Amino acid sequence: MVEAKEISRAVIKRLPRYYRYLGELLEENVERISSNDLSKKMKVTASQIRQDLNNFGGFGQQGYGYNVKYLYTEIGKILGLDTRHPMIILGAGNLGQALANYVDFEKRGFKLVGIFDVNPVLEGIAVRGIEIQMLSELPLFLKEHLVEIAVLTLPKNRAREMADMLIENGVKAIWNFAHVDLDTPDDVIVENVHLSESLMTLSYNLSQYRQEHVEK
Amino acid sequence: MVEAKEISRAVIKRLPRYYRYLGELLEENVERISSNDLSKKMKVTASQIRQDLNNFGGFGQQGYGYNVKYLYTEIGKILGLDTRHPMIILGAGNLGQALANYVDFEKRGFKLVGIFDVNPVLEGIAVRGIEIQMLSELPLFLKEHLVEIAVLTLPKNRAREMADMLIENGVKAIWNFAHVDLDTPDDVIVENVHLSESLMTLSYNLSQYRQEHVEK
Repeated sequence: MVEAKEISRAVIKRLPRYYRYLGELLEENVERISSNDLSKKMKVTASQIRQDLNNFGGFGQQGYGYNVKYLYTEIGKILGLDTRHPMIILGAGNLGQALANYVDFEKRGFKLVGIFDVNPVLEGIAVRGIEIQMLSELPLFLKEHLVEIAVLTLPKNRAREMADMLIENGVKAIWNFAHVDLDTPDDVIVENVHLSESLMTLSYNLSQYRQEHVEK
Repeated sequence: MVEAKEISRAVIKRLPRYYRYLGELLEENVERISSNDLSKKMKVTASQIRQDLNNFGGFGQQGYGYNVKYLYTEIGKILGLDTRHPMIILGAGNLGQALANYVDFEKRGFKLVGIFDVNPVLEGIAVRGIEIQMLSELPLFLKEHLVEIAVLTLPKNRAREMADMLIENGVKAIWNFAHVDLDTPDDVIVENVHLSESLMTLSYNLSQYRQEHVEK
């Protein structure tokens, strides 16, 4: 396997996008692609692509291009997609259920093993074959099952206490959709999706564009 | 109003987070806060905070600290949250409905005016008082209503054609949750939320952490 440690953060940040495009090429049965063709598709320069992908060793030969499947597989390994990640979702509202229903996650190794909520009305309802359990059952569940990733789609007032409980029970990564910053030890990975902040960025760009074009 | 154009991109990217913390302080009836106290809350250095917030003119005086409400309001204006943004959602699945149900968006000026889907089973079902309409009715709707932002929570195979139609009909901003990059003209603002890529980043950080700690 390629040694991931040598690769810069900047390249790493671009990997999921390469992975997505290579996946689409695979679906279209494309076996190889030149950096120029990939450049046109992805709207980054061919030299950026060559530089980025050169990190992954001896492919991308002159006159041949990149082997799509090999590159896809190698990038997948670097992203940790070649192993199974047992995952639970806390909060079975619309967002939690939307995430539970993404079949693509499962294809990439993110295996949903439990869904939890506080709302008794939801108890026992199955989402993709997994019955929603009550949050009160979670500590026991964590003792009996290996869970690596917890997805937090709870209201922000519950998110912090839940994060503490998850960490106490050995969960190592939190995908946080709650609108708070979590306070976690160094050995716990947190990835935040702050939807409001994304919408505000859009709104900022919109106002900014208008301001610039009205002023002219 | 503060002149936003002088402020660097790096500061702008941090504004939604300031806005969130200031909003929380307001809810707690905090009238003023020192850069040191804000620093402890937000886990950035006080000097970073002073530098960032100095962009917004003459507040943050020695011995007084920042006026929370004033700063919150000014940052809100820069983010374009002082105006009403009529918004529609295309795709009334779980994710679309989750976004439709976020009352916080409406408080910040993002006013939901329509929800559309292709699934006839959903037609007429109300989400927060707004009845789901069929996508076929959208072109007419856009002619009769002012819509600024469209939220795309459609499958990726429909997202591109929908984006084209929206742009033809004058929509100026797209909040894109579909797993594709949209091809849009310069005067259309696109903000992407690629959830799979966020999850892959989490998975990468997890593998990386393990590798480093197993190797030691």
